[in-house]
Amino acid sequence: MPNKTEALLYANENLPKFKSDLEDLVKIPSVSTDPNHTTDIRKTADWLKSKLSDLGFQETKIIETDGHPAVYGSYQVGPNAKTVLIYGHYDVQPADPIDLWKTEPFEPIIKDQRMYGRGASDMKGQIIASLAAVESMLKSGGAPVNIKYIIEGEEEIGSPNLAKALEKHADLLRCDVILNPDAGMISPTSPTIVYGLRGLAYFEIIIKGPNRDLHSGMFGGIVQNPAIVLSKLIAGMVNEDGVIQLPGYYDSVEELSLEERTELSRLPIKDEDLKEQTGAKKLHGEIGYTSVERVGARPTLDVNGMLSGFTGKGSKTIIPAWAMAKVSMRLVPHQDPKVVHQQLVTYIQNNVPDTVEWEVIQHAGGPAAITNREHPGVKALSEALEEIWHQKPFFKREGGSIPVVTEMQQIIGTESVLSGFGLPGDNIHSPNESLHIPTWEKGILALILFFYNYAGGYEN
Amino acid sequence: MPNKTEALLYANENLPKFKSDLEDLVKIPSVSTDPNHTTDIRKTADWLKSKLSDLGFQETKIIETDGHPAVYGSYQVGPNAKTVLIYGHYDVQPADPIDLWKTEPFEPIIKDQRMYGRGASDMKGQIIASLAAVESMLKSGGAPVNIKYIIEGEEEIGSPNLAKALEKHADLLRCDVILNPDAGMISPTSPTIVYGLRGLAYFEIIIKGPNRDLHSGMFGGIVQNPAIVLSKLIAGMVNEDGVIQLPGYYDSVEELSLEERTELSRLPIKDEDLKEQTGAKKLHGEIGYTSVERVGARPTLDVNGMLSGFTGKGSKTIIPAWAMAKVSMRLVPHQDPKVVHQQLVTYIQNNVPDTVEWEVIQHAGGPAAITNREHPGVKALSEALEEIWHQKPFFKREGGSIPVVTEMQQIIGTESVLSGFGLPGDNIHSPNESLHIPTWEKGILALILFFYNYAGGYEN
Repeated sequence: MPNKTEALLYANENLPKFKSDLEDLVKIPSVSTDPNHTTDIRKTADWLKSKLSDLGFQETKIIETDGHPAVYGSYQVGPNAKTVLIYGHYDVQPADPIDLWKTEPFEPIIKDQRMYGRGASDMKGQIIASLAAVESMLKSGGAPVNIKYIIEGEEEIGSPNLAKALEKHADLLRCDVILNPDAGMISPTSPTIVYGLRGLAYFEIIIKGPNRDLHSGMFGGIVQNPAIVLSKLIAGMVNEDGVIQLPGYYDSVEELSLEERTELSRLPIKDEDLKEQTGAKKLHGEIGYTSVERVGARPTLDVNGMLSGFTGKGSKTIIPAWAMAKVSMRLVPHQDPKVVHQQLVTYIQNNVPDTVEWEVIQHAGGPAAITNREHPGVKALSEALEEIWHQKPFFKREGGSIPVVTEMQQIIGTESVLSGFGLPGDNIHSPNESLHIPTWEKGILALILFFYNYAGGYEN
Repeated sequence: MPNKTEALLYANENLPKFKSDLEDLVKIPSVSTDPNHTTDIRKTADWLKSKLSDLGFQETKIIETDGHPAVYGSYQVGPNAKTVLIYGHYDVQPADPIDLWKTEPFEPIIKDQRMYGRGASDMKGQIIASLAAVESMLKSGGAPVNIKYIIEGEEEIGSPNLAKALEKHADLLRCDVILNPDAGMISPTSPTIVYGLRGLAYFEIIIKGPNRDLHSGMFGGIVQNPAIVLSKLIAGMVNEDGVIQLPGYYDSVEELSLEERTELSRLPIKDEDLKEQTGAKKLHGEIGYTSVERVGARPTLDVNGMLSGFTGKGSKTIIPAWAMAKVSMRLVPHQDPKVVHQQLVTYIQNNVPDTVEWEVIQHAGGPAAITNREHPGVKALSEALEEIWHQKPFFKREGGSIPVVTEMQQIIGTESVLSGFGLPGDNIHSPNESLHIPTWEKGILALILFFYNYAGGYEN
């Protein structure tokens, strides 16, 4: 018989073991965007499949895709029990710029209550937290619900093959609620449930000038510089007030209601803290909105990378043959990445000079998502978090993108409960990523309570 | 007794040997901007010193500087003979982007009458041409003039230590005329003497935003993107008409006289050919001037390189911590690189937002130069070129920068005769640099005639 107290005690006693599991997982450099890490990706998937088998999942499998594989597992207590599907991704961002890491990115070490390593927070730590909660229940009489896992390997490159896999295996994935622990907390004392996520539209713009790098003395004055052309295009995309200038960009963006703005203003996120967290000299963004609104509920445009010509030490006097920028936009509900693509193309057509050739390559993209805050899964998690943290969770719109949330809703027909135990200071996607161990340990206990809460009440 | 005819015959018979000398020199990757090639730089200097000794120069030495060394040599026929100082640089541009080379940059090969290799044209080929002419004379009874060499190793990085070396060794370098074969020809049938050179002011601009690369979802909307800030700054530096917008930039720029414009218009340089040479979709430059004027007699501004954030394959969703651009300007007579530096700094101060930190690093720089076309050395070379090519040489203002010409004038007090046998299609500073062998061979003969013409007449 499932025993909640025993499970909580088991978890508490086995924290060192769970940390060791996490270290094992972080050690595998599962960088999904880099073809050199294909073997590591496969190794990580195999590690997770074995883990689920060892825990006693009756069915486990590697789901092949056109890209990196996903891991599936199913633990069944009975046909009448409710089913929780846990979503995760085992892939990580590249470690570069590597020279800014103070430790080896794939050799996790614990220092000052933090585990340092690429993926420790995003999101291998979150996967292990859920596995630890599940292990604690299974070693203590079993779980009170059926549990399924789907852990993909392409989230950091925009989940290009997940939708197809979800469609193909929709039967396997049937469930009553999806737990997605890929969202974070506001602070170690503020448990958080995310009800809104931004979408993403990511592009690469290439401006092609002369047929090779030219001597800037011999040809300077007769050939337009592709890096200057690109700079002018980028410069015109956002005005001084942080308002995006692509034609029609805000047409489908809904204005926030006064009620939601009031609620968002309760979040304990101060501009001063954001300034501290980012190290920015001064915050900046779309005029007329608070920082919380600008990150969660307003669309943005950023240059993610830019390259042209000679970038080594010293000087090389050339007119570069080409210039490239990676430009991405965070989208809010009702914005369609395909429409945004067309807006970008139209903007360039209208503004690029006829002295150059150009190209826009479309990378990852997905729409934004909003979750129903009255869902039983949300309530079960909300009470679990409150019990552990002695603090009602905050409800937040997150600035990041989890395209899978929209896809799950569309394909499996189930809503996701979004939470997680990462913190703003974890440096995810940056050098020196780390996980705050005490918060993570509380998270394991909270997840055990979540499963019991969800099994015990809250009719779906 | 010096014998001109014998020297010309010797040169003609020994062309294969001279080519082999050039191959030996191109094989040493003397890239001055890259600290990894310091040994190669030294090797090249030693090679040249030995060469001069072998030819019979009575005095040869390596002149040490705070950077790469220069090579000096002196061949004396007598105190009453005139003295020609030959200037050269043995350093080369980096080979990158290396993957665009069709052959190995430092393994010269000859194909279709061209020798391919970094430095084959700029300017190891020119150095060997002069050495071949000198060798031909010395093996045929001696030279009719005293000959000195100064060959530096830092031209491609702006000759930062040459002025100091010239000052220290001004006595050694005393001469009646300087032959500088680092300028090129308009076409294989158009011998050219350059009477104007542009100056250079080269800068690196760094914009610093957040203290690390940030997740563009978590922080997009509150932190200004340094790559966008940099793009806006660059975008504002040059307007749509190719007019540079730095405050006061044109204040000291002299308008061309009608006479000079008429003369420059005689140069056989067609826009169609420039388009062909560069592969540009369309030419572009400062409104109101011809291509020849824009390259030779008008100042320009180019981005030579640009780097920010993630530039690998695929997508990485970050706000970069910083963005960098290398920006350089070609200057015309009366523009002072120091003043231009201040204009750039003022422009940034006036236009940069207070959300970022910034820095401007000054790289190479030097003023422009103009040579007197009535100098006896110019006349001696002009007639030599005409005798070999059966065509009066063209007089041209060159777009490139040879700071040493100004420095020689200032420090040694001697004017330079600027010519050379490189061609516009040689791809100097680009992948697949090459030297047109037939033109180069004519050049060797022309240089022999130059020495005899200069010895024979044209009072200084």
